[in-house]
Amino acid sequence: MWLQGGDDCPPGVRFETDPSLPPEAFRLTGGKGGCLIESADEAGRMYGGYALLAKLALGGTPETISMTNAPAVSERILNHWDNLTGDVERGYSGKSLFFKNGEVSYDPQRMKDYARLLASVGINRVCFNNVNVTPLAARLITDKLGDLAQLAAIFRPFHIKTIIAVDFSSPILLGGLSTADPLDGGVAAWWAKAAETVYKAIPDLAGFLVKADSEFRDGPAAMGRTQADGANVIARALKPYGGKVYWRCFVYNCEQDWRDTKTDRPKAAYDHFFPLDGSFDNNVILQVKHGPSDFQVREPNSPLLGAMKDTAQAMELQVTQEYTGQQIDLYALAVQWEEILSAPVSDTRSTRGLVGQEIQAVAAVANTGDDANWTGHTLAQANLYAFGRLAWDPSLTAREILSDWIGLTFGTNPALREPLLNMMLDSRGVYEKYNAPLGLCWMVNINHHYGPSPEGYEFSKWGTYHRADAKAIGVDRTDNGTGYTSQYHPYLRALYSNPDTCPEELLLYFHRLPYTYTLKSGKTLLQHIYDTHFEGAEDVEGFIETWDGLQPLLPESAYYSVAARLKRQLVNAREWRDVINTYFYRKSGIPDRQGRKIYP
Amino acid sequence: MWLQGGDDCPPGVRFETDPSLPPEAFRLTGGKGGCLIESADEAGRMYGGYALLAKLALGGTPETISMTNAPAVSERILNHWDNLTGDVERGYSGKSLFFKNGEVSYDPQRMKDYARLLASVGINRVCFNNVNVTPLAARLITDKLGDLAQLAAIFRPFHIKTIIAVDFSSPILLGGLSTADPLDGGVAAWWAKAAETVYKAIPDLAGFLVKADSEFRDGPAAMGRTQADGANVIARALKPYGGKVYWRCFVYNCEQDWRDTKTDRPKAAYDHFFPLDGSFDNNVILQVKHGPSDFQVREPNSPLLGAMKDTAQAMELQVTQEYTGQQIDLYALAVQWEEILSAPVSDTRSTRGLVGQEIQAVAAVANTGDDANWTGHTLAQANLYAFGRLAWDPSLTAREILSDWIGLTFGTNPALREPLLNMMLDSRGVYEKYNAPLGLCWMVNINHHYGPSPEGYEFSKWGTYHRADAKAIGVDRTDNGTGYTSQYHPYLRALYSNPDTCPEELLLYFHRLPYTYTLKSGKTLLQHIYDTHFEGAEDVEGFIETWDGLQPLLPESAYYSVAARLKRQLVNAREWRDVINTYFYRKSGIPDRQGRKIYP
Repeated sequence: MWLQGGDDCPPGVRFETDPSLPPEAFRLTGGKGGCLIESADEAGRMYGGYALLAKLALGGTPETISMTNAPAVSERILNHWDNLTGDVERGYSGKSLFFKNGEVSYDPQRMKDYARLLASVGINRVCFNNVNVTPLAARLITDKLGDLAQLAAIFRPFHIKTIIAVDFSSPILLGGLSTADPLDGGVAAWWAKAAETVYKAIPDLAGFLVKADSEFRDGPAAMGRTQADGANVIARALKPYGGKVYWRCFVYNCEQDWRDTKTDRPKAAYDHFFPLDGSFDNNVILQVKHGPSDFQVREPNSPLLGAMKDTAQAMELQVTQEYTGQQIDLYALAVQWEEILSAPVSDTRSTRGLVGQEIQAVAAVANTGDDANWTGHTLAQANLYAFGRLAWDPSLTAREILSDWIGLTFGTNPALREPLLNMMLDSRGVYEKYNAPLGLCWMVNINHHYGPSPEGYEFSKWGTYHRADAKAIGVDRTDNGTGYTSQYHPYLRALYSNPDTCPEELLLYFHRLPYTYTLKSGKTLLQHIYDTHFEGAEDVEGFIETWDGLQPLLPESAYYSVAARLKRQLVNAREWRDVINTYFYRKSGIPDRQGRKIYP
Repeated sequence: MWLQGGDDCPPGVRFETDPSLPPEAFRLTGGKGGCLIESADEAGRMYGGYALLAKLALGGTPETISMTNAPAVSERILNHWDNLTGDVERGYSGKSLFFKNGEVSYDPQRMKDYARLLASVGINRVCFNNVNVTPLAARLITDKLGDLAQLAAIFRPFHIKTIIAVDFSSPILLGGLSTADPLDGGVAAWWAKAAETVYKAIPDLAGFLVKADSEFRDGPAAMGRTQADGANVIARALKPYGGKVYWRCFVYNCEQDWRDTKTDRPKAAYDHFFPLDGSFDNNVILQVKHGPSDFQVREPNSPLLGAMKDTAQAMELQVTQEYTGQQIDLYALAVQWEEILSAPVSDTRSTRGLVGQEIQAVAAVANTGDDANWTGHTLAQANLYAFGRLAWDPSLTAREILSDWIGLTFGTNPALREPLLNMMLDSRGVYEKYNAPLGLCWMVNINHHYGPSPEGYEFSKWGTYHRADAKAIGVDRTDNGTGYTSQYHPYLRALYSNPDTCPEELLLYFHRLPYTYTLKSGKTLLQHIYDTHFEGAEDVEGFIETWDGLQPLLPESAYYSVAARLKRQLVNAREWRDVINTYFYRKSGIPDRQGRKIYP
């Protein structure tokens, strides 16, 4: 058990129980020669211990330490998209930490390190297997359950509960039933039996995660049932054991016809789930992606978040950099997450205010793998760290979090910390500059999602169109267009519907505009595109200069591995610059006002 | 042995030897009650027998049969792109006939049927394994050689010799050497030893097929050696046994920068190989794709074909419909191949005249798999048949060949034969109408190569760009542009270099032209694009009507399976029509003169 005098425990620490504190919370009280950690439970004692260690590592002295801290939400979840083959879907940090050659397989010592790592940043739920459950992975609740239980046992002392991603068709696939219809009695009985078996092996299991009716996966809709029917049949099976169903809301038509301008993918989650508010059992949590598209560099927040008054929700973020540079490009996600949390949901409230209320859990897709530094890009460790910190305390700023991460990782020397902090704080904006402009999204290469392909998705079935022609670009999502804006609170609806009040970084998410449209800067939309794309590549040159300047202050291996990635990022930024600029130049025939090089 | 009174042998047939006939040739002389087959060798006897069977099946009577026939080339090769996993690269007819789960694995009876099938159409060389040799498949010349030899033994009685695709890096991969440098003595010795081993198991092996320095495969260039160095080191190892090296010329820069307008992929094969004429050992055959791109719907013939006076060449065709409809869409390749063979190489000579002279072998990528009908699409059987017939006799017309195939497959009733023949003869032109226009190429979805994606390849590394802007499209490949035309005979160079004399179907292969360019029809280039794309989809509707009308005359299973595919073809043709028309409409802003539906 952690902090019973083990090697994590700093000297001079005393523990006391204060039952008045909330679960997992702690109070640190410093004094000469030591520190008191008070908590109501063992988890709080552990988190207090980690907080103390962090304070000390950041240069605090016991005398000055005094804090009380409780998590905003009781479930802070990390979802791994690891396959039993050992491959990680959207993984950029090597192979799976948990699986290999079709089996549960890991290094026990490293696994303990990983559990400690996650606990130290506040994560208390982990799903090891991919939401896209293969037939092999489905067997984690049958013949591979024993192996999974052993893995779960490693995380248990760190107060991390296991979640299992299950296939909605398990009754057919594993049980040999002829249907997975949630209203079928045999199906309900099968899930009940499955839950009984699983809880025997993992008595503190948090629950099952389900991706249903989504991207070719089976689900209740195929059987004419609602999402609530689908979630509830599993929830009822888990209920006797205190388990929950984490039901993903990533349900949309992934076989859309591009000719169809009525269907609008961003509307899908709200359309599918909002009308069902009140139909879900109380141990169902709807896991809603933060944006209505799919972890793009810039999206508005999902209108579904917080909109369902009688349904529990988890906000889903993505730590792995699928669309955000794939751990080659530097991208401090804390900056984006701070924006997401600060975004208004009405004239009086921001998304941050939802967390702990309407949003009762925060989940994210992991960025870790078996690379020695866990995350491929060393600085991408900060993304995992930031996720844990923000899930615990959504009021933190990116600056606070990244400053802490740098201090804990490279030390508190301001000559290193300040320039690196600024570089990381800038990184999201820089990536956005050379990515798709003004919230346009989806100008990325299909399938692997790295590098530009302006029309790669334009005629696909994924519902991702910008419909650029010689004069204009974008989809009108106001009431004059697809009507997507009507899903928002009236305040936001009005804000987004008018190009004059719409936040400019989202202009092309909500509006179709001519290249000659004038922005607040006085620049045309097209000139803004040219300018930001030239700037983005230049900014990456600046990152390289900054990083090279820090070399003497950095551990050698960290310096070289990040330097190598920054070089690749520069190639990528230049590729985005040139492809996007050429694309728009060819489309519009309008040259750059500054006469810079645009390839014809 | 075939035709020694076995079940293939028709009654009343006599055999005699005439040593004056060329190898594999035969003379059929009919008479009352029987027929005489004369040949110099057993192979000729077999081919004569198959020819006789075909004549009889097509309604001939013994009395009327009289023919002498010799193949134009002595090597008529079928290349399978089958992996040991059982998957077939670019295969659309099920799984591999030869491999499964990493092993040589087949149904012996079906394999004998397959050997007979190939022999009956004149094929006498077969490579079972993919030119992209995986580390597992590389072992076909080591521990899996015995299994391969057993497979080869099934084909031997049908006078079909085996070719093995080998990895150029085998000395490293299999031999544990530190290099595969062709000028290294140890490497030469390794190949010599490998040849000795292989010829012990398969004494009549035709040789080794090599894809080197091509699409990320190892090759001599990586070691600073020439293609001739690479081919010769293996050729010398095979020489003592009469073996040959089939060395593919598909060498180009597949990591091109789209910004680079000097490099031009169609120039690559000629640039790499022409200067080496005379450097290759005489048991090396260069295997040259028919066109300079990659089995596109419309390309000029490769200028390398026949250009090397002191080097043996094989022309490589593709029976499997990678870019030509994937055995979903109807596409009678005989029509395209007739065009390829009829194409001029100078003012006095056509490509057909090269075959048997400068072109000493014909090879093609197979379209067969373990589907019950061998080729997925039943009518795609005609493509395999046509390949065999044309490799034997390049002077045949598509009409002759397809008429024979229909007669042999569905009978000689003209009420079926004529409409089906016309439909098949039209099929290539129809596909071309809705595919990329005027020889443009590469408007196809990346990776899987089915369906339209007008800019899917536009910024890729594959050297495949059309550079469309608001006014014009295409790459100037004349001396004013990339200079590709200079690789041709002066007659063709002049022909292709002038848009007025360039065959219109190749106009955008050689020229960059405005959408408003006037074609010989009086239509603008853009109106031609709109028109052909509307026509293409309408023509497929016509195919469906024709096919439905033939239902009473067709075997039920053939009718339904082709009907199902024609439905899918119609979806595809409409998708091409709408995507391509929309793409150009968005680019140019110019509407269709006939006001038909173009999606905005």
